[in-house]
Amino acid sequence: MTVGIVGAGQLGRMLALAGYPLGLDFLCLDPARDAPAGQVAPLLTAAFTDRAQLRKLARRCEVVTFDWENVSAESLHVVTRAHGARICPPVAALCAAQDRVAEKRLFEQLAIPTTRWQAVSTRAQLARAIARIGLPGVLKTRRLGYDGKGQAVLRSMEDAARAWEQLGSAALIYEELVPFDCEVSIIGARSVGGETAVYPLCGNVHAGGILRVTRAPYGPPQWQRRAAGYLRRVLEHFHYTGILAIEFFVLGGRLIANEMAPRVHNSGHWTIEGAATSQFENHLRAILGLPLGSTRPLGHSGMVNLIGSIPDRAGLLKLGGVHLHDYGKKPRPGRKVGHCTLVEPSAARRDARTLRILKDLAADVGFP
Amino acid sequence: MTVGIVGAGQLGRMLALAGYPLGLDFLCLDPARDAPAGQVAPLLTAAFTDRAQLRKLARRCEVVTFDWENVSAESLHVVTRAHGARICPPVAALCAAQDRVAEKRLFEQLAIPTTRWQAVSTRAQLARAIARIGLPGVLKTRRLGYDGKGQAVLRSMEDAARAWEQLGSAALIYEELVPFDCEVSIIGARSVGGETAVYPLCGNVHAGGILRVTRAPYGPPQWQRRAAGYLRRVLEHFHYTGILAIEFFVLGGRLIANEMAPRVHNSGHWTIEGAATSQFENHLRAILGLPLGSTRPLGHSGMVNLIGSIPDRAGLLKLGGVHLHDYGKKPRPGRKVGHCTLVEPSAARRDARTLRILKDLAADVGFP
Repeated sequence: MTVGIVGAGQLGRMLALAGYPLGLDFLCLDPARDAPAGQVAPLLTAAFTDRAQLRKLARRCEVVTFDWENVSAESLHVVTRAHGARICPPVAALCAAQDRVAEKRLFEQLAIPTTRWQAVSTRAQLARAIARIGLPGVLKTRRLGYDGKGQAVLRSMEDAARAWEQLGSAALIYEELVPFDCEVSIIGARSVGGETAVYPLCGNVHAGGILRVTRAPYGPPQWQRRAAGYLRRVLEHFHYTGILAIEFFVLGGRLIANEMAPRVHNSGHWTIEGAATSQFENHLRAILGLPLGSTRPLGHSGMVNLIGSIPDRAGLLKLGGVHLHDYGKKPRPGRKVGHCTLVEPSAARRDARTLRILKDLAADVGFP
Repeated sequence: MTVGIVGAGQLGRMLALAGYPLGLDFLCLDPARDAPAGQVAPLLTAAFTDRAQLRKLARRCEVVTFDWENVSAESLHVVTRAHGARICPPVAALCAAQDRVAEKRLFEQLAIPTTRWQAVSTRAQLARAIARIGLPGVLKTRRLGYDGKGQAVLRSMEDAARAWEQLGSAALIYEELVPFDCEVSIIGARSVGGETAVYPLCGNVHAGGILRVTRAPYGPPQWQRRAAGYLRRVLEHFHYTGILAIEFFVLGGRLIANEMAPRVHNSGHWTIEGAATSQFENHLRAILGLPLGSTRPLGHSGMVNLIGSIPDRAGLLKLGGVHLHDYGKKPRPGRKVGHCTLVEPSAARRDARTLRILKDLAADVGFP
């Protein structure tokens, strides 16, 4: 059985590594010849819009998934039309996640609290949005944003003017800036047969728009219950198949949905060592209609992203219990090139050791 | 950094899957085009004695290891002579493990208790060996035996005559048949820098000469101490690098060494999910001079080999907590095609659930 992956980044790489023990084969499609998943699985090197190669992927695979949420729906339709290969997760969920306005409307439709927002296409609309929602706020492109790219925090009308110059050529959304107490995410799977499984809540720390640290399990039981409930609403709404993640701001005990990702998620990387079944294996089980694996945590996990370059490997592994994940990417400032995970018997020990790693990396991310 | 693997069986496959997260690349050499490791890593398809391809392997790799203990020392010497690529584990340890007589002498030299034995090259020597050691006993080829192949249990002089017809063309060894209480194995690593790490003792059940079930941790602390001591003697003797396994019979509380394997070992597959660091990752860390990872058990593990064919995947995964490892091999009676592992909070629960899997597989192996 061959699983196709549109996109061959680190997520595709970790999907393939989780799928080989299940006896699966993989075929990826990515424009980059040195893409991380292409180092561990066969790769069709082609643009995401290359119809001939998309058709080849469809022909060779029973089911096709994606590891990048900016793949165009049109490309995926080429796949389904070619040979009826199933696309998982559903393209409708992908479309909702690709457009921040559609995403906000979805959250509102499903009664999931979200930030106040307004669509912005003109300079005048931006002024009206600021008047209504206030400052500070965040101006974001509706599409193609990731890792903090395509967004600007506005604290003054001067900021607004500058941001408009930068981003105004695209369709935008203006959102309130939530003075959150912390950020969390919930990750879960729904299988072809309708079975669902939800992981423990993740506590996330971002810096410069990039996820730096995740701790799990995180927060009181009522956060877990509420987040899992919201996640299940989205899963059922789409008759979803695969892993879905939703990120929230927490403010005064309220969970405010920020965005969702219809794929395995960076804040779920700790599940490789820290849960009975990883998010990658459960994504594959879900899209193949296999029974979902337990999401039980095996301890208190801390995940630290490695940004820019992989630090000295021996130095990192000398800290006992550190699990390294090197994505095989060329170093570049601000690039996610790997992560490492700790699983500890207590939250206190996990926090202390995570902090130790951050210090060794000279990463000042305001943690914990 | 590229690691070469001579042999591309399931052990090579699991080495590669453990090594990708460390940022390693792999290149395998194996005569079989559909070899399990060749499905997840680049493969040179060539005989183990193909000098040109062995030299190519040496040229492309910083360090070369092997996943099959019947690779000839001569082949490995071609590798080292070609470009000075390091071979790990040391060829001297491989040579000792390849010849049952050399292995017995090594155990005796290091004061590790072993079975009574005698080398047999002629029919007359066999008669003398039986007279000295007695019946029942086991007649084995000195070389190229695995999974019970190349050996016969002798209970009578008629058995001896039959076995001689079958095996007598090769150099043989006659050993006493130990009426053991149970079988155990010890697995550990020694790194380039001399650091050692030993896993908890494994309790093994064989049937028809093939390992069927491993449970770990297993047995009282004094067995662990004694086995680890014997293992360390062999590790130090060879200035060993990588994972080494020794199998023992246990009789009246005594550990009697049966054989050793200078490689990752089937009875250590449980370490993938059941230990803080798997034997595969620690083999790679050891040969690359990286700090060894913790061998701490994460619970009570049970590993069941899947022989002949992979059973219905959904049925197997429906038993919560089962981790499947499908080696991507064609089904064939008596062939190891995969394994599955459980990690449970108690030994009793582990045993009950392992038994349940064996029942589902209709595998009658006299367990526990």
